Amino acid sequence: MKYSQYFIPTIKDSPADAELTSHKLMVRAGMIRKLAAGIYNILPFGLKAIRKVENIVRDELNKAGAVEVFLPSIQPSSLWEETGRWLQYDLELLRVKDRHDREFCYGPTHEEVITDLVRNDIKSYKQLPVNLYQIQTKFRDEIRPRFGIMRAREFTMKDAYSFDATDAGANISFEKMVQAYDNIFQRCGLQFRGVDADSGAIGGDFSREYMVLAESGENEVAYCNSCDYAANVEKAKVLYKENIESTVPEEQLEEVHTPGYKSIEEVANFLKVTPADCVKCLIYETEEEMIALLIRGDRQVNEIKLKNFLGVETIALASDELIYKTLQLTTGYLGPVGMKISVYADNELQENRTFVTGANKDEFHLKNVDLSRDAQIKGYGDFRNIEANDPCPSCGKHGINFCRGIEVGHVFKLGTKYSEKMNATFLDQNGKSQHFIMGCYGIGIGRTVAAAIEQNNDDKGIIWPKEIAPFHVHLVSLFNKDSDLMEASEKLYNELIEAGVEVLWDDRNESVGKKFKDADLLGLPLQIVFGKPFQEEKQVEITERKTLTKEKFPLNKAVEIITKKLS
Amino acid sequence: MKYSQYFIPTIKDSPADAELTSHKLMVRAGMIRKLAAGIYNILPFGLKAIRKVENIVRDELNKAGAVEVFLPSIQPSSLWEETGRWLQYDLELLRVKDRHDREFCYGPTHEEVITDLVRNDIKSYKQLPVNLYQIQTKFRDEIRPRFGIMRAREFTMKDAYSFDATDAGANISFEKMVQAYDNIFQRCGLQFRGVDADSGAIGGDFSREYMVLAESGENEVAYCNSCDYAANVEKAKVLYKENIESTVPEEQLEEVHTPGYKSIEEVANFLKVTPADCVKCLIYETEEEMIALLIRGDRQVNEIKLKNFLGVETIALASDELIYKTLQLTTGYLGPVGMKISVYADNELQENRTFVTGANKDEFHLKNVDLSRDAQIKGYGDFRNIEANDPCPSCGKHGINFCRGIEVGHVFKLGTKYSEKMNATFLDQNGKSQHFIMGCYGIGIGRTVAAAIEQNNDDKGIIWPKEIAPFHVHLVSLFNKDSDLMEASEKLYNELIEAGVEVLWDDRNESVGKKFKDADLLGLPLQIVFGKPFQEEKQVEITERKTLTKEKFPLNKAVEIITKKLS
Repeated sequence: MKYSQYFIPTIKDSPADAELTSHKLMVRAGMIRKLAAGIYNILPFGLKAIRKVENIVRDELNKAGAVEVFLPSIQPSSLWEETGRWLQYDLELLRVKDRHDREFCYGPTHEEVITDLVRNDIKSYKQLPVNLYQIQTKFRDEIRPRFGIMRAREFTMKDAYSFDATDAGANISFEKMVQAYDNIFQRCGLQFRGVDADSGAIGGDFSREYMVLAESGENEVAYCNSCDYAANVEKAKVLYKENIESTVPEEQLEEVHTPGYKSIEEVANFLKVTPADCVKCLIYETEEEMIALLIRGDRQVNEIKLKNFLGVETIALASDELIYKTLQLTTGYLGPVGMKISVYADNELQENRTFVTGANKDEFHLKNVDLSRDAQIKGYGDFRNIEANDPCPSCGKHGINFCRGIEVGHVFKLGTKYSEKMNATFLDQNGKSQHFIMGCYGIGIGRTVAAAIEQNNDDKGIIWPKEIAPFHVHLVSLFNKDSDLMEASEKLYNELIEAGVEVLWDDRNESVGKKFKDADLLGLPLQIVFGKPFQEEKQVEITERKTLTKEKFPLNKAVEIITKKLS
Repeated sequence: MKYSQYFIPTIKDSPADAELTSHKLMVRAGMIRKLAAGIYNILPFGLKAIRKVENIVRDELNKAGAVEVFLPSIQPSSLWEETGRWLQYDLELLRVKDRHDREFCYGPTHEEVITDLVRNDIKSYKQLPVNLYQIQTKFRDEIRPRFGIMRAREFTMKDAYSFDATDAGANISFEKMVQAYDNIFQRCGLQFRGVDADSGAIGGDFSREYMVLAESGENEVAYCNSCDYAANVEKAKVLYKENIESTVPEEQLEEVHTPGYKSIEEVANFLKVTPADCVKCLIYETEEEMIALLIRGDRQVNEIKLKNFLGVETIALASDELIYKTLQLTTGYLGPVGMKISVYADNELQENRTFVTGANKDEFHLKNVDLSRDAQIKGYGDFRNIEANDPCPSCGKHGINFCRGIEVGHVFKLGTKYSEKMNATFLDQNGKSQHFIMGCYGIGIGRTVAAAIEQNNDDKGIIWPKEIAPFHVHLVSLFNKDSDLMEASEKLYNELIEAGVEVLWDDRNESVGKKFKDADLLGLPLQIVFGKPFQEEKQVEITERKTLTKEKFPLNKAVEIITKKLS
């Protein structure tokens, strides 16, 4: 492709709203342009990379026996009412009415549509298993779209859905996808990790996320140094010593005056104990009720675990105002003793010891609180984040480490969650009606490209992994007025194309500086420069973008050397 | 692809709502399934054909120098307000509000978005010309979606937009697209015709439609036997004898009693004249006013011409009730004499003669009406459809013919219509700010596939043109229990794939009858059958789907013969 006839509008400055390196680089390299918040135009250089990822995805899914379809973006509300998600989804679902006032949504996912298709067209176990996928645009009206196409509202996703007759079959379908995902992200040249994850709004029994490792990732991953355990911190289970026999402590409850000391640190300092000796009492609102949660003073609450434990759809910390209005209590002095709403406590608080808590009385705390003696605990559960000194939930050894990742893929065992709600059945070998056993499998296509850039760049620009680079070679002709040089450039350009190399030829009438800067910014694996060495001794300079090492070669060896370097 | 591991749910009966052959066949051949009115799931066999068309389109557009982008489906209302189309578009525009109550639409077309992109990123004539295209989903909330994916609400379209610095450049860009379109539809194996067309809601100076010729087409095309003139009847100009000197006729106006005779036929019969001696007077409503239109009694009004002449956005016949309420006149007795609203008349009525018209009085008509003497005509224009005995508007000779077509492509010279409204400018060679000169170019991708089927089928099913056939060969193994036969089939299947042939192998455990029926219905160019001749003498039967001619060949010659037949 000749740059002069292409459309890569590079710019010098990063956009004001860009926080992530990948976002900045994608805008500067003329890959994307914002149309509205979370809605992006994909320009030619960006689209090339996206198509490369799409083709790798398509290739690996086809190999794994999945079959491509294309489902509508606009979906009737009636299907979403069958699964109950029309009500469950909040403002993230972009709802729309057509000219006849019928309700639709712009699909954020396609479980309903695919289950409807399959229940109408697959009647017998003989037609199973089937795994249908598509590469299609989704819309999720995120409250805070950000990071360019990393977390856009309108975005391209590969979603696949498997349908099986038996649990064993469903597990095979799932494992095939796990293998395909490993292949896909390896072929994309990414450092990644598959981790256990929470199933979120999609639901189902088990799910696994694919994380591209990057400091700026929104997800925290916990992994074990001793075994292959890895999980999203949202999901990572905390082991605790079960069946500790509780003994009633000798110390009696004691009310202490703690004027103005509200935070755990302040109270612990004042009472000369550690934060681990204190218990935080937090009030949450769900769509059903208000509850109190107890957790050790030095721990972090994991709201996803709490939400799953309670089986509710929404959960959020109650405001100070609401707490005062409902319970006539002041935040900072809350505690379990005498609490009028249901109290849940983290497993760790079953240890046989006493704690400091708020006294449910302004400016007072309680010492020597024994939860089994002094409070009513409705349930104990795993409500906190795993920490570095916790044992591995898989092998039990110590040595949990943490890293950050960008979620680029997510696979789910759905079981019969959707097929039951939508009454999607087939006839089994005995002529008996059974619900399909489903799995679903997503990859964010644009996000994978952005994550690759987030993982591969330097202060000059992008460093493309070869498999997803928009072109392989950036051919730079420095002096447009030298017709010998331009002719020789064009000859090499044509020879490389002939040899199957994808070339971007910078034939523009631009300054030498601008051409070099753009070549580094666009970051194609190899740069071939026609400059002074060509004029003086018919040599071209070949730079590997990753290492920035430069070598000179005679022009007549260039095709051979370039194809060898690329293979 | 093995049929048993694929997903082509063929069905016996056509859907109740299908009128067109292509719609029936696409559903029966398991290519599409309706999700909601005008919204379709595209199944694997359908998607394969669509992708073939997409790739032909992409290839020809790239060759013509156009560059692929991908623009959002959800577009902010602010851009549409700049061009005035937010108000101009009626219910066909699917409007939607996001979580912050900001207004967007699901793009039915992308002039606004692309013009915004280009005005931000192209500043100089040096960056021109540029032609950007995409293959993207559109939504048009049609009042009557029908014919399957032929006239769907959600559909895939290729749209390209050219930007030039000069009129001459814009014409070159346009002609390149015309050539690309010819190549595309030829490569798709279609019988088609490029015709002059009305520019409709897209607007601009000149447009040309590409019609796939088919009896069931929604468009009527007029073409000349003597020259290469062809135009959509909506657009085809009617020549008339200009500058006829008007003489005042001798006959005086005469009111005649015509009790109950309302239609042109009834009145003409009763008065013993021909319909051509009568004038129809029709009352239209526009968004601005109510007008009367006069046209010869034997002619058909062309409302598109009338709309363009008046420069209005909407036009529709007024109801009898509204006419009575506004004008106190009864339909059937309307005429120009004494008409209180503006009267327009077809050019043909400038002939130097008198007519019969309604008297604007119940149960009366007027004879000997001379429009210049007896009526106030606000304007004459070309308001009727061209007819067989009209002269060709291009060469002037007689011999206009008509055919029906399906519009699959439309190219427009837009001029500066959008760039002026959106203030999209570049600096020319003299450093002067100029508006981009634009063109836009659409192809309905799914519609092209449907049109190809509409043009190529018989009573057994589809007959695919080779270039867009989902597979080249339908390999049918009749007896699943004969392991020799299945092994030999699989061997040939693999050899053909090796040879670059795309094969659908029917390896299902289905009856012979079902397999033959499905092969004819799916309509791939060649059918290869492993049946009795294989068992008896190691021969396969090769059927050309188009002619249904069958030949037997020794199995060991099959690859050679098949590749030869396909080349």
